[in-house]
Amino acid sequence: MEEIFVVKIGGKVIDDEAARNSFLGRLSKINKNIILVHGGGKVANQVLTSMGITPVMVNGRRITDAETLKVVTMVYAGLINKTITAKLNSLGKKSAGVSGVDGVMLDAVKRPVKDIDYGFAGDITAEGVNTDFLLTLLKGGFMPVVATIAADKNAQLLNINADTVASTIASGLASKGVKTNLFFCFEKKGVLMDAEDDNSVIKELNSQNYPELSAKGIFSEGMIPKLENAFKTINQGVEKVIIGNSLDIEQFFEENHAGTMIKK
Amino acid sequence: MEEIFVVKIGGKVIDDEAARNSFLGRLSKINKNIILVHGGGKVANQVLTSMGITPVMVNGRRITDAETLKVVTMVYAGLINKTITAKLNSLGKKSAGVSGVDGVMLDAVKRPVKDIDYGFAGDITAEGVNTDFLLTLLKGGFMPVVATIAADKNAQLLNINADTVASTIASGLASKGVKTNLFFCFEKKGVLMDAEDDNSVIKELNSQNYPELSAKGIFSEGMIPKLENAFKTINQGVEKVIIGNSLDIEQFFEENHAGTMIKK
Repeated sequence: MEEIFVVKIGGKVIDDEAARNSFLGRLSKINKNIILVHGGGKVANQVLTSMGITPVMVNGRRITDAETLKVVTMVYAGLINKTITAKLNSLGKKSAGVSGVDGVMLDAVKRPVKDIDYGFAGDITAEGVNTDFLLTLLKGGFMPVVATIAADKNAQLLNINADTVASTIASGLASKGVKTNLFFCFEKKGVLMDAEDDNSVIKELNSQNYPELSAKGIFSEGMIPKLENAFKTINQGVEKVIIGNSLDIEQFFEENHAGTMIKK
Repeated sequence: MEEIFVVKIGGKVIDDEAARNSFLGRLSKINKNIILVHGGGKVANQVLTSMGITPVMVNGRRITDAETLKVVTMVYAGLINKTITAKLNSLGKKSAGVSGVDGVMLDAVKRPVKDIDYGFAGDITAEGVNTDFLLTLLKGGFMPVVATIAADKNAQLLNINADTVASTIASGLASKGVKTNLFFCFEKKGVLMDAEDDNSVIKELNSQNYPELSAKGIFSEGMIPKLENAFKTINQGVEKVIIGNSLDIEQFFEENHAGTMIKK
């Protein structure tokens, strides 16, 4: 497989039907080997609440007890995954909705309890990505649409952070010698030099300018782990990472790319 | 692909963890090209009830309104599908949990309203089975585990009866010249000559003895549509249909088969 693009979506693109359909319409016209990884948006919390379960988040991460695990499996791997996949198929982009469980795609382990017990949350590594299944789908002409549920060796289902799934799949493919790119879609146009100015997108971050800019304190608390993760992925062999707005997705693929590109 | 076996499970095998694991343990040891189609069991009704929605069934078929559709998509394509697939993978049988949506496997249409409005229930035909996706998975070494949700051309998700999905997939494969067999697993040992005697299994039904036995009124009201459907499938080119107990699954594959075999 000559080159693969792992695209992660979340937030508004999941929750808002118009935004989702606009994004999927754009994506469906891009003739590249794409693996789409989706988060869960707010739907899981709505379903939990309707079932009388209070969602619990710590440091932006979900605490997944047994009942919550059932709900996120239903919402992510069921409702959201099939809604997105059906839409892509109706747009002529042949897609297959799967999860980390399927084809043993992701070997997960339950996160060890340290300060916080995250419950049925999973950890994964690049070595634990079984790329055969993803490559079988892509070679067959089917775009994998990946929900972020996986299982451990004993069939225990586990909930995994969507950013982690996307970057780990990208690293896993790169480690097998496949030229792989990783695109994170979010609501801003890219990583901003000035949080108040939406047009202050930093075009490129690399090991030269990142430490300098970081020292100036321009990156928000939420952005720092994303950037650290992007550099980790690059160091694991991924070609480039782009962080930008989902509605600019076509331009992620262009030479003069939209968003912020992270390179070595 | 030399020969395919479409296996449909439902009822207790879905609802009861011990029965499910026993069945999946047996299935995982069978080295054949299998497509597993699963029903929804009682879980969907439990989830509906927990969300304050009253399940509605007419003539044994679900009335699928918009909220019910979301729940069955979550339960069938999410929770049940991933639970089964994770178990099979943990047993060493590489499996991929999918639905009729994925790879455009099933072209469905919303059931026209006649006497009863079934809501978001789908109808499918053998011609509307896109076998490419199933064959891609099987050739890649992955057993398809199929949840019975599909979509129409406009990405409307639809709920489809599991017996119908299994027999239509079998007919669709047969129509493409693939030697295909269809196995229905249920709680009885087969079609019984005497409903009171569990050991009165009819070994074979064919176009000779079926009309005779039918005229004697030995088939229960619930069994007649299953048998009519089995004969329809046979007439569409499926090699054989076996109806029997899920715990005898290994013996469905033997010359001296368990259960009731329906042949031409």
